[in-house]
Amino acid sequence: MASSEGIARAPVPPVDEAARRAARRRWSTLTKPEGSLGRLEALAEQLAAIRGDARPRFRRKTIVVFVADHGVAREGVSAYPASVTSAMLDNFLAGGAAINVLSNVVGAETVFVDVGIDAEPRTESPRLRVRRVARGTRDFAREPAMTRAEAEQAVSTGAGVAREVIRAGTDLLATGDMGIGNTTAASAMLGALTGRPARDVVGPGTGLDASGVARKAEVIDRALRSRDMDPHDPWSVLSGVGGFEIGAMAGAALAAAHHRVPVVVDGFIATVAALWATRLQPSLREYLIPSHRSAEPGHRLALEQLELVPYLDLGLRLGEGTGAALQLVLCEAATRLLDEMATFEEARVAQRSRPS
Amino acid sequence: MASSEGIARAPVPPVDEAARRAARRRWSTLTKPEGSLGRLEALAEQLAAIRGDARPRFRRKTIVVFVADHGVAREGVSAYPASVTSAMLDNFLAGGAAINVLSNVVGAETVFVDVGIDAEPRTESPRLRVRRVARGTRDFAREPAMTRAEAEQAVSTGAGVAREVIRAGTDLLATGDMGIGNTTAASAMLGALTGRPARDVVGPGTGLDASGVARKAEVIDRALRSRDMDPHDPWSVLSGVGGFEIGAMAGAALAAAHHRVPVVVDGFIATVAALWATRLQPSLREYLIPSHRSAEPGHRLALEQLELVPYLDLGLRLGEGTGAALQLVLCEAATRLLDEMATFEEARVAQRSRPS
Repeated sequence: MASSEGIARAPVPPVDEAARRAARRRWSTLTKPEGSLGRLEALAEQLAAIRGDARPRFRRKTIVVFVADHGVAREGVSAYPASVTSAMLDNFLAGGAAINVLSNVVGAETVFVDVGIDAEPRTESPRLRVRRVARGTRDFAREPAMTRAEAEQAVSTGAGVAREVIRAGTDLLATGDMGIGNTTAASAMLGALTGRPARDVVGPGTGLDASGVARKAEVIDRALRSRDMDPHDPWSVLSGVGGFEIGAMAGAALAAAHHRVPVVVDGFIATVAALWATRLQPSLREYLIPSHRSAEPGHRLALEQLELVPYLDLGLRLGEGTGAALQLVLCEAATRLLDEMATFEEARVAQRSRPS
Repeated sequence: MASSEGIARAPVPPVDEAARRAARRRWSTLTKPEGSLGRLEALAEQLAAIRGDARPRFRRKTIVVFVADHGVAREGVSAYPASVTSAMLDNFLAGGAAINVLSNVVGAETVFVDVGIDAEPRTESPRLRVRRVARGTRDFAREPAMTRAEAEQAVSTGAGVAREVIRAGTDLLATGDMGIGNTTAASAMLGALTGRPARDVVGPGTGLDASGVARKAEVIDRALRSRDMDPHDPWSVLSGVGGFEIGAMAGAALAAAHHRVPVVVDGFIATVAALWATRLQPSLREYLIPSHRSAEPGHRLALEQLELVPYLDLGLRLGEGTGAALQLVLCEAATRLLDEMATFEEARVAQRSRPS
């Protein structure tokens, strides 16, 4: 499990169905109409099953944002220049980005991981881990994005950072991403994993116009034909058209599951990373907490593949873990309701006047 | 404005469109792709327009829960006995209800208002205001729910409590409700205000079975025929089939708007109260922040009438202001993002590489 690709091979432990049932039983004793907390009830039950605790509480919520560059950005597939990846890392460290504000709003910590940007490395700090696989991936329109060894390194890097924050007390993990070009990589991975053509998986990303989206689709279709990828060999997909931050998010999710820590999945890129990881370890799915439905069209397909239904639908399409950050509040709300509400007996409130 | 029904007559001031435009301009300078925060952007703009401040911040969020009994509960229209209203008030004051937990999660204060329960009054405290109109409404299946004077008193009571919490510093208000039988009252009010029959506005409330819903629909249809109500005279509707807590929520919303304080509207009952209030003062709509889409079927119609689209869809059907409480986080997230994020210039991040 500590070896470079061990995390991908170690079976994910099953969740605790007895804890899930105990949580469900407790809901029916609490002072509210049966089922009236809607999806928050099943959410708390899932969190109970993951933690193996009928009344889980979260002490430390951490959002890990993985940052990397993409060779495919050279193909003009983004509305922003590639230099923005590095500039946004500085913005994260200075506290000026959306994810900084949201992490403060929801009371979560943040860790930023340079898993391969194409710029001089910043000085490592408690909030920044410099764990580069390379200075960006290669342009997968022309050659494989990375070697298989680099793919394994990206995954094990993500797993390693997740283990570090979990050892430091994190019991609820969210992952996020930043990397100009990464919707192109995620779309291509989704196409390769599902056998769908570019038109089913492509979208405007940070804000391409129609001709930009068409160019992006061409790049993806060409890569799906040219790269030697097998949907039954997830490693061939990650190395063919993936990104370092995508592999790292997958590794982080796998490591969290091994430690029975729930993984809150952000938007399109994070969901593709999660889908990729479940192709290695299908039981990982039980540990995934969906957050929001992104405006990026391919997100719907990725969610369907995982049979996940997001809790929020706010038209976000920013990445950075912003949707996952908001979902942390719903996780806290659901588990604190389950833990803190009074029972009918404690509050001496009458139960139903007759059977429904 | 201080008189008993003055709040309903005083025109609601227009919101500040210059502040809305200034907020919109600021979004376009912040370090994120244009429009990528989805609905949070328009939410912050609305809050800016209400507050008359391009970068509003909220210092004190308060959830006011109005509690009252309903004579119509005697018709067997609820899955719970009427005694639960009073027992739940005790539960609120002891901190054991869902709204207590959620207000802690989201950092809001709570105030509970006994606006007419059918039990001995509790001792007033900072968290409890005893402002009874009567010991419950009369059974509107048989006679008008209240007199017009009582209707006016309910509305002015809600307005008075809202003014008190606003004077104490509240700058973001949410309203909630508790009252066994109040989905029946809200459904009947919605039917009377829109001219729709019971089948379009009725639902299971706290958990009626099919025969219970049919009985409830009969009671509503009978009241819609028997009570002397005119959709163009909202007071006739409130006194005919309403509830004290529903009138109070309407009054609280009107008073908040007069003080340029946004009103976060909870689920079905609160939305019907808001709809009723906009029939008196249409400009109130600009001050209403929808929260969640309730599982109660009539909520859809009430929202459509107000042209409001909720932000959350979690299948909640609990009342108490629980959905509004969660929405307070989105209000805080939206306004803090607008206020705290770095601009492209401050962060030295390049803007778009080409026009979209």
